[in-house]
Amino acid sequence: MKEILIDAAEAVRAAIAKVDRTKTGEVVGMGADGTPTEYIDRVAEEAVLGVLKRYGNPLNVLSEEHEYIDNGAEYTLVLDPIDGTFNAVHGIPFFSTSMAIGRKSLSDIKYALVKDLSTGTMYYAEKDKGAYAEGVRMITRKLGKKLAFSVYMGEMAQEKSFQVAKRGRRVRNFGAASLEMCLVAQGSLDLYYLYNRSPARLRLMDIAAGTLIVKEAGGDVLNPADEKVLDMGFEPGLRTDVMVIGDREILEVLK
Amino acid sequence: MKEILIDAAEAVRAAIAKVDRTKTGEVVGMGADGTPTEYIDRVAEEAVLGVLKRYGNPLNVLSEEHEYIDNGAEYTLVLDPIDGTFNAVHGIPFFSTSMAIGRKSLSDIKYALVKDLSTGTMYYAEKDKGAYAEGVRMITRKLGKKLAFSVYMGEMAQEKSFQVAKRGRRVRNFGAASLEMCLVAQGSLDLYYLYNRSPARLRLMDIAAGTLIVKEAGGDVLNPADEKVLDMGFEPGLRTDVMVIGDREILEVLK
Repeated sequence: MKEILIDAAEAVRAAIAKVDRTKTGEVVGMGADGTPTEYIDRVAEEAVLGVLKRYGNPLNVLSEEHEYIDNGAEYTLVLDPIDGTFNAVHGIPFFSTSMAIGRKSLSDIKYALVKDLSTGTMYYAEKDKGAYAEGVRMITRKLGKKLAFSVYMGEMAQEKSFQVAKRGRRVRNFGAASLEMCLVAQGSLDLYYLYNRSPARLRLMDIAAGTLIVKEAGGDVLNPADEKVLDMGFEPGLRTDVMVIGDREILEVLK
Repeated sequence: MKEILIDAAEAVRAAIAKVDRTKTGEVVGMGADGTPTEYIDRVAEEAVLGVLKRYGNPLNVLSEEHEYIDNGAEYTLVLDPIDGTFNAVHGIPFFSTSMAIGRKSLSDIKYALVKDLSTGTMYYAEKDKGAYAEGVRMITRKLGKKLAFSVYMGEMAQEKSFQVAKRGRRVRNFGAASLEMCLVAQGSLDLYYLYNRSPARLRLMDIAAGTLIVKEAGGDVLNPADEKVLDMGFEPGLRTDVMVIGDREILEVLK
């Protein structure tokens, strides 16, 4: 499975490098859950589907840009071909491709890959085998004195987000959930927090790979509303908020 | 002058690629204004000074990491060897080297270069000759309906920052002022806003290059306290806030 994911991520990178920049912002359809998709997402998705076909379609596919593809397989690829489309289309160098393989829900994901499409850095995890950035084991960091967060802000953010943002010494927001989850996994950040009003909440595809990566690095993915561990079935329409933590101590600090 | 800046930026990129990752967070001294500097900054600064020496030291140097170097030249290089040191040291792929050449103040800068050290993208401007990203002319964008901001948040931010953040559809913060100013210049963002309590305000070195780049792209750099055009002398100890805009219409929207 690892080989398939690596090949698929490389195919995405190669495909979008060829895309005419003047076309990348063009809306070309609606995603499986009704959100508009853009040209760059479609090109990226086609690259992944091409790789799967070459392998004999061994996985079902649940993607942001496409209806569910049932290949009669045991496992499903949960795919966000481009996470951070706004960044990608507007020349902001922070976007990724996100791929996870599991059966039915966030909690049973077995393989996960997130690739930073600006720098090429690959984040990879397998259930019970750890999480790695370019082959180097990732471990979340213990809470120190200077807290570093990524907090989703803006007109769609819940008021609580602003309260959380006031507690960090350094507060970032990069606009690509899967990569920001990897930053928590590798100990760059203590927290990734997104607590929004609809429709600006996250989809399964945004967080599926990042969830396994964070857990294998020693962190966890919670629902900010009740601070319980998040689970979510493989359904295209669902939305969620997330509170991605490296060290549970952060829950005390934010009380 | 352009050749010197390009050579210096390349030297920084080569030098930090060689730096042992385990050493990059080590504090090795105090900057000209008393803030602690880190190993990666010193390595980057030495690379720039090496290039200047090779050219016969044609510029004075005002750097974050060093006392003022008076080479008896007409022009001074205002240097931030690494902008976004926290990011660089913590594995977050958003940091740059920032270089500006002028005589006495922000308003008389003639040449400016910012290089994204993760992606290699080079932003360059000359007074009255335009601003360019990898050779492509940059123009700030006109305000649309969906506002995209970068707003500095966290425990050091003034309350006004949170009010501004609530007005954007997309609100980012990347943690490297010079690069964020380039994102406004190239029309990725409508606003870069940093309005902080001391000591988390910006230094001349953080904004010198970005200021010329933004102005040459059609934008402006204001003081958020009075919304007047910002100027600042070439002195190491000064601090400022900034409101970097692509289109003056944003001033009405934020009223």
